[in-house]
Amino acid sequence: MKPLYEKVDLPVASIRRYLEPGPIVLVSSTHGERRNVMTMGWHTVIEFSPSLIGCVISSNNHSFGMVRDSGECVINIPTSALAEEIVGIGKCSGAWIDKFETFKLTTEPAKLVKAPLIRECFANLECRLVDDSLVGKYSFFVFEVVKAHAATTPKYPETLHYMGDGTFMVSGKIIEQHPKFSAGILWRRILNALRPVQRA
Amino acid sequence: MKPLYEKVDLPVASIRRYLEPGPIVLVSSTHGERRNVMTMGWHTVIEFSPSLIGCVISSNNHSFGMVRDSGECVINIPTSALAEEIVGIGKCSGAWIDKFETFKLTTEPAKLVKAPLIRECFANLECRLVDDSLVGKYSFFVFEVVKAHAATTPKYPETLHYMGDGTFMVSGKIIEQHPKFSAGILWRRILNALRPVQRA
Repeated sequence: MKPLYEKVDLPVASIRRYLEPGPIVLVSSTHGERRNVMTMGWHTVIEFSPSLIGCVISSNNHSFGMVRDSGECVINIPTSALAEEIVGIGKCSGAWIDKFETFKLTTEPAKLVKAPLIRECFANLECRLVDDSLVGKYSFFVFEVVKAHAATTPKYPETLHYMGDGTFMVSGKIIEQHPKFSAGILWRRILNALRPVQRA
Repeated sequence: MKPLYEKVDLPVASIRRYLEPGPIVLVSSTHGERRNVMTMGWHTVIEFSPSLIGCVISSNNHSFGMVRDSGECVINIPTSALAEEIVGIGKCSGAWIDKFETFKLTTEPAKLVKAPLIRECFANLECRLVDDSLVGKYSFFVFEVVKAHAATTPKYPETLHYMGDGTFMVSGKIIEQHPKFSAGILWRRILNALRPVQRA
């Protein structure tokens, strides 16, 4: 059974914690009568506020025209429980099938964009295209996250990170404010570096 | 003891496997008499060939001017063995100290750029700035990887992935061509979706 997450609204400036670690994501889009979902791994946070994300959606992809023409999408973040869907969605084209139906994904309406949210994903980021100046050259889109939804549990969902050639890394343990990272050690090192006599 | 990796040359089109999973990286740069290294988490692959990477280097960062003015940098990928250095480098400014000395990092000359390679990192990507059109607006640089070096072992080094607020995710297990991802399952689903009679 795939999970169906209940979510709460998130401040859009805080979505960095979901994307910066580099998970593979599912991008949903719609334009006119058509809708689609694609697997995407090439993305980066660009700014906290406004909340900006940059990503590559190849012009070979069926979603490219829908995202460019509608100026909207939803970035859905799946856990490893959706591994089969992530790979399957990445291997076929929405030109021939409705991938939401094929992969039995539950959609629900977004609040500020027309592209659907995917309930089986633990976070959904509603995005508006704010800069298409590099779309022609690199298929690189800059989106503003205008609304964010995320499950409150688990705190650190297990994500998949793509390495190419069918290989994935699964997210591992979490280090929160590890004692090794203390400011004390840092300042001792800096002070040592500033005392050339002691280092001679 | 920090590792000192022996490396081989890599085809630049293959560096996606190192960056797409989203590790935190160390960016080294030099210009004139100055040099610096910074911690960076906001990056994405943009293209295989030419091998393009996009990343954000904030104008608040001491490295910003060096990278922009020299048009070069090296993206060094550390393992979790360098956790203390990753955090420490991210917390101080190269305006006051030489961070390579402070954090006892071993540099060696790059082949095609002037910025130094860091031997304690398992991969070093020599980069040239090829598009600065979004530098003014978002501090977003597009680099071409012109030379790549990587250790051959371990095959999957343990990397750190930043989530903000002092929290890191450590890379976990690797899934290579998992049987769940077989084309058979995928095609069965697609064929099922294409047979509306059976789905009624």
